[in-house]
Amino acid sequence: MKIAEESLALHERLKGKLSVTGKYKLNYDNLSLLYTPGVSAPCLKIAEKKETVYDYTWKWNSVAVISDGSRVLGLGNIGPLASMPLLEGKALIFRRFGGLDAIPLPIASLSIDESINVIKSVQYSFGGINLEDISTPRCYEILDRLTEELDIPIWHDDQQGTATIIAAALINAAKITGRDLRNINIVLFGSGAANTAVYRLLRVAGLSGKQFRVFNSKGVLGTHRKELLEIPVLRKICEESNPEGENVSFEECLKNADALIALSKPGPGVITQAHVRLMKKSPVVFACANPVPEIEPGLAIEAGAAVVATGTSLYPNQANNALVFPGMYRGGLDVRTSAFTWGMCFDVANEIATIAEEKGLRPDYIVPKIDEPNLHFRVAKAAAKSAIKEGVARLSISDEKLEKVISDNLDND
Amino acid sequence: MKIAEESLALHERLKGKLSVTGKYKLNYDNLSLLYTPGVSAPCLKIAEKKETVYDYTWKWNSVAVISDGSRVLGLGNIGPLASMPLLEGKALIFRRFGGLDAIPLPIASLSIDESINVIKSVQYSFGGINLEDISTPRCYEILDRLTEELDIPIWHDDQQGTATIIAAALINAAKITGRDLRNINIVLFGSGAANTAVYRLLRVAGLSGKQFRVFNSKGVLGTHRKELLEIPVLRKICEESNPEGENVSFEECLKNADALIALSKPGPGVITQAHVRLMKKSPVVFACANPVPEIEPGLAIEAGAAVVATGTSLYPNQANNALVFPGMYRGGLDVRTSAFTWGMCFDVANEIATIAEEKGLRPDYIVPKIDEPNLHFRVAKAAAKSAIKEGVARLSISDEKLEKVISDNLDND
Repeated sequence: MKIAEESLALHERLKGKLSVTGKYKLNYDNLSLLYTPGVSAPCLKIAEKKETVYDYTWKWNSVAVISDGSRVLGLGNIGPLASMPLLEGKALIFRRFGGLDAIPLPIASLSIDESINVIKSVQYSFGGINLEDISTPRCYEILDRLTEELDIPIWHDDQQGTATIIAAALINAAKITGRDLRNINIVLFGSGAANTAVYRLLRVAGLSGKQFRVFNSKGVLGTHRKELLEIPVLRKICEESNPEGENVSFEECLKNADALIALSKPGPGVITQAHVRLMKKSPVVFACANPVPEIEPGLAIEAGAAVVATGTSLYPNQANNALVFPGMYRGGLDVRTSAFTWGMCFDVANEIATIAEEKGLRPDYIVPKIDEPNLHFRVAKAAAKSAIKEGVARLSISDEKLEKVISDNLDND
Repeated sequence: MKIAEESLALHERLKGKLSVTGKYKLNYDNLSLLYTPGVSAPCLKIAEKKETVYDYTWKWNSVAVISDGSRVLGLGNIGPLASMPLLEGKALIFRRFGGLDAIPLPIASLSIDESINVIKSVQYSFGGINLEDISTPRCYEILDRLTEELDIPIWHDDQQGTATIIAAALINAAKITGRDLRNINIVLFGSGAANTAVYRLLRVAGLSGKQFRVFNSKGVLGTHRKELLEIPVLRKICEESNPEGENVSFEECLKNADALIALSKPGPGVITQAHVRLMKKSPVVFACANPVPEIEPGLAIEAGAAVVATGTSLYPNQANNALVFPGMYRGGLDVRTSAFTWGMCFDVANEIATIAEEKGLRPDYIVPKIDEPNLHFRVAKAAAKSAIKEGVARLSISDEKLEKVISDNLDND
């Protein structure tokens, strides 16, 4: 409990982790340039040509960190107001590691349509939207529809962020165990926001649906799970990974599994040594529930796991979203991307995997540490280049110029 | 046009007038206090007791500057995106003169109900809401309903801000011309957001409806103006100021007028010397349209006006909202007011009048200059004390402590 008390004391002393500061010293002489009547000029320019809002305002660099408080950390539906400290913390990370102007913007918890309408109604000030801690299955449709309907990029860290870092870890885990991603069999344990995104990302990366078996608390996903077929994201997983609707057991599936990716509920003991022993030789085990992994890494290794990753900094191989999102936004906004595509996520995952590989892969080092020099810069560059490649970037910038832009923008804290 | 070009160049160089900065240097060691897992502790505290959000987050000091772009400056309905430079400018003034963390938050232009819903849905991050440049008659109901329905204070500068500074100027204009506010006859020329608020404020200040005649482009307001009776704010003016529905002319009313307050359309020549000559001896003439007053002050004085005020800095006696709102917010938020009442507006108007009076009133000096030392501090103190008196303050702070709190919070830029 010490960390809770320390955190409370620090929050009470700071009274807010962020401040809005002026980039120019306003005085009574320049008021007429920065405010009325002079400010009419940029207003009119934007009215004539809306893209100039990126030249005259902070929109090129601003991010709204939005939650409806419907699923905050492990605390459940504590509401928008109580999500504020988390959102401010996220905004602070955006500032510190991404050089972005991010603000906390909790919204009321509403129906999917209403949430989308509110976010669309307040989009104008922002270059991007970061969704945080929104409950399933609402978060799937909210992310997909906003990605489709807005011309600024949307990111839901619990989906894309987690999937990207898991993919990076899996790429290196495959390398280190001599496996080919195209041939491995993967059991996903948990079918929440994180694992459904892992599935979507790996499918875009070229894996087939048949390489997966996906489990939630009621058993394997498949076409026999009628209650899931109404949710498009889950329906796709059911139809692609288990079109026959076979009601196979978790234990049965593990026998054929190269990798187990658990993003379910905090352990210990949710996954057991017996489970690991059922798997193929030298299996990959990711136990990423927070704050406590589904199985203690030492136990998994004892039971034969070749590589283990978790979600916490207490063990080696922390799959931490904070390796991904500051750079993803920095690079995305610097080429004015209209979306964060799954293709961008996979390109960034590969870059993160490469960063670790360059230092020398070991079973206890498959993802970079979060304080790796140049990490956010390289992620940003990979994201920007991928956005251009994917056709979603609205600015086309040469490689050399991109490096300068990104490094200038990262260094402003 | 020079000012427009200069403003464009400055805006292009700055690329946004604001930045979000961290109040604490985040690093990989304190991440666990400022973000997960430590941040759960303040989240839980707020979930248990919502008022603690003022202790643990920036809410105690933050303001959303909101417009739907439906009536921006003199530019009309240019939309939310094009209002960004104006809103950023306003936020910069909040920072510089009020010590507040203000962000631009344009919203889509919607029906009254939808606008209210959007604002209520995004209220959580903010200690107060500043409405800006919303068209009439929508702005009346939006302000009144949000004041009623939200527990954070709402301000519409075009209503309360203008009314407050006009009231301050009128108080001193009455003093200097030897008039008693309770007995003067006032002609309001224009019945938009500004003059309807002037009317509401002066009524709360104790003037009777019969002291007013109110004109818009179609003539005098009164019960005969059936088309206006559907809008509650205008209906009240019609019923109180002209219950018989007399269709009197502007010229006829001027004969009996001590003061003419024009907040209508830019001049020159909207008000003429002939109009001024019709008025009682040594009349008060406020010609506050921007950028050009309804009558040039020199001409009004030549025609007999004893005191003239305008909305621009080009002439003496500028009735400038920027004298009001930074201090109103500073003081209001420092006692955690739940609303900005008309009573607070009148108390602040009196304080602003007193500040000028202490320097010695003259016909060309009835309101303080905007760079008056201590102006925002005194406005803030008056606003805070008035909020306590009006029963809307949720913190009760002694006078001495209030002075320290306000001056600490003002000095943080």
